[in-house]
Amino acid sequence: MISGQATAPAPSSARTPAPAPSSAAARSAADAGSGKGAILRAARRAFTQRPYAEVTIRGIAADAGVSPSLVVKHFGRKEELFNTVADFGPAAAELFDAPLEALGRHMVVTLVNHRRELQSDPLLRVVFSLGNQDERSLLRDRFHEQVTDTLTARLPGRERALRAELIAGHLLGLGATLSLHREGAGADATTEHIADLYAPALQSLIDGA
Amino acid sequence: MISGQATAPAPSSARTPAPAPSSAAARSAADAGSGKGAILRAARRAFTQRPYAEVTIRGIAADAGVSPSLVVKHFGRKEELFNTVADFGPAAAELFDAPLEALGRHMVVTLVNHRRELQSDPLLRVVFSLGNQDERSLLRDRFHEQVTDTLTARLPGRERALRAELIAGHLLGLGATLSLHREGAGADATTEHIADLYAPALQSLIDGA
Repeated sequence: MISGQATAPAPSSARTPAPAPSSAAARSAADAGSGKGAILRAARRAFTQRPYAEVTIRGIAADAGVSPSLVVKHFGRKEELFNTVADFGPAAAELFDAPLEALGRHMVVTLVNHRRELQSDPLLRVVFSLGNQDERSLLRDRFHEQVTDTLTARLPGRERALRAELIAGHLLGLGATLSLHREGAGADATTEHIADLYAPALQSLIDGA
Repeated sequence: MISGQATAPAPSSARTPAPAPSSAAARSAADAGSGKGAILRAARRAFTQRPYAEVTIRGIAADAGVSPSLVVKHFGRKEELFNTVADFGPAAAELFDAPLEALGRHMVVTLVNHRRELQSDPLLRVVFSLGNQDERSLLRDRFHEQVTDTLTARLPGRERALRAELIAGHLLGLGATLSLHREGAGADATTEHIADLYAPALQSLIDGA
């Protein structure tokens, strides 16, 4: 669970077709550093920073240093590319892939390792879209469905939706502060040590204590 | 500490000149709902969503529904307006205004009340700037200085910088998830109940336990 994606092929077979539908996270794992990875990073930047109507394949291609036709070849047209970027399903599958009694630590370790290995956060891009009021609510709708609602369904006990929202907050906040303090103390700390300090809060909300 | 800004005049005297240097948070309290408030909200949107060079007083004025000259009259030119928006000092003063043994709960209660009363988050706008790599690093530099470093200096014990970064993460995450789930369970919960569930994580990091 540390080095790979739960739903992605192993890195050594990354270039073979994935059995599951392709997705942003699976593609990130397979294509980190390649042209595809650069296109996805550019697409995430574009879709989270500009109104949907202002985003162009040409602009994403220029940002990624590739031709517009290569973008379309790999990911299809604008709507398809947006759907790929807005998919939190594989990230959620990986984050939630642990028994309840170990889920808090698993989520923290998985999130930090994902960030360090893929140079991207599995969830944080939904926050970049918050300042905007336009059709990009798809990103938020997907987050609700694939992250918050999925987590709510896993939790035992009372006030499951509220606890799931607060757990999502802890996860988003961890990504936010690590992004914000790229050269800070968190950057020097081991994943396990960050989990020692940060995961008890998540586990407490999971347990419903 | 619940209804006002630590450094702002009381609401009843909101229209009189403030004795302290004016600031985004103090102005938010004083001008919520007025033209000034609309200008500040438009400025925050603009400066966190677009490269600094692309932001114009004209665009902010149009978004706020006022004339460009009114923007300049209230807040000065673009650089001055940016400096106002990028100031986390008053928010930090309010968030950290409690003894250490009660600071975790105070921060959560203050953040949630600030959001509910002013319809804006005291810290979250720094996250909106993360996706960008341009001169808006001023927003991040100010956050480091006014929030993280200030908190680090308050903490007892070891690994203070790391703990301060993680506390900042919890606070950013709380704002992020409440913004993301505007009609969710968190919106219906009382501030005190959110603090019951969320503040122990912060207090644990404050105590260094």
